[in-house]
Amino acid sequence: MTDPGVFDELRAFVAERDWAQFHTPENLAKSISIEAAELLECFQWSADADPARVRDELADVLTYCLLLADKLGLDPEAIVLEKLADTRKKYPADKVKGSSTKYDAYED
Amino acid sequence: MTDPGVFDELRAFVAERDWAQFHTPENLAKSISIEAAELLECFQWSADADPARVRDELADVLTYCLLLADKLGLDPEAIVLEKLADTRKKYPADKVKGSSTKYDAYED
Amino acid sequence: MTDPGVFDELRAFVAERDWAQFHTPENLAKSISIEAAELLECFQWSADADPARVRDELADVLTYCLLLADKLGLDPEAIVLEKLADTRKKYPADKVKGSSTKYDAYED
Amino acid sequence: MTDPGVFDELRAFVAERDWAQFHTPENLAKSISIEAAELLECFQWSADADPARVRDELADVLTYCLLLADKLGLDPEAIVLEKLADTRKKYPADKVKGSSTKYDAYED
Repeated sequence: MTDPGVFDELRAFVAERDWAQFHTPENLAKSISIEAAELLECFQWSADADPARVRDELADVLTYCLLLADKLGLDPEAIVLEKLADTRKKYPADKVKGSSTKYDAYED
Repeated sequence: MTDPGVFDELRAFVAERDWAQFHTPENLAKSISIEAAELLECFQWSADADPARVRDELADVLTYCLLLADKLGLDPEAIVLEKLADTRKKYPADKVKGSSTKYDAYED
Repeated sequence: MTDPGVFDELRAFVAERDWAQFHTPENLAKSISIEAAELLECFQWSADADPARVRDELADVLTYCLLLADKLGLDPEAIVLEKLADTRKKYPADKVKGSSTKYDAYED
Repeated sequence: MTDPGVFDELRAFVAERDWAQFHTPENLAKSISIEAAELLECFQWSADADPARVRDELADVLTYCLLLADKLGLDPEAIVLEKLADTRKKYPADKVKGSSTKYDAYED
């Protein structure tokens, strides 16, 4: 379901630079954590972050997520929807509504 | 460009559970870092990770990224492509080809 | 057991700059994750990291850990030893020896 | 300056389980990020975290920091103090006092 054009662009970008050699799943997973922390840094001392910086860092996290999905032959939107269906079963709305305690449980 | 159906599904899921109250941009940024670390955990002691677990954790990172993008009125695929265009200008293919040193610079 | 001189130095540094106002436990926890990712960045594309950079980033992670411990009235070395005693009971050496599977379990 | 007894205990724990084989600097750096995210999880939806859980997760972050320091022949307290001396020079108290903007700069 994810627009194939995005993957085409990413693949071309990586190929032009000969960077596929660095993109093992493990290195991409490290990169996602590193970029996620740069996104978190926008909120390090205050909840009031600079929107342009947030947009920029979120784009970096997403880029590495798409590169990892492509590497593993996964469709990002499809795996999000599949996980959502699993979570719906596990945490029925009527049991966890508005509860942060149940929400914490959901995180585990 | 991102399929609007994905956002519809995510919004319905959150609304049914009355969880929007927890989804401040700061909390979503924390959540992205937390889920990124669970993805990294698949590779903690070895590069050889369980594909089903990786798929599951990548879905969680993406879910929180989509929730943050939706909160900020951003289209995930559009910001990835915009950032890619910026990076293309900053790191021309002929100057950084195959170089991990230049690649590191790209990370900064 | 941690040398009290280290805490004295850290407290003086923070007080001179009037930075205690930023050091809530939550902000310090975010800071530890952010600095941990900068340490991880030394190993992003290769296991062969620059020792001076690793030392520098590890010092940053430790600094925020000490600031959080001090904030919560905890002795860093004491909590490490207490946790180690708990883990010894949970994962007896004769049951997990050399096993990365059990080691993974230990992470949960 | 760090109490050598802590390192002795950690080394014995690792040796009894034959786990040194997993403790490359890269794996320890990944582990520090993973445990830092578990600490952050205590604050995921609220600033009001459970003290016992925070203590437990902080102990895990510190344990992997000590294991990495030991691996690299570094004294944790010494590198914290050395970094502090560098930062004092870079950010004189009279220039950055009470400023969160300058504080952000300090993070870079």
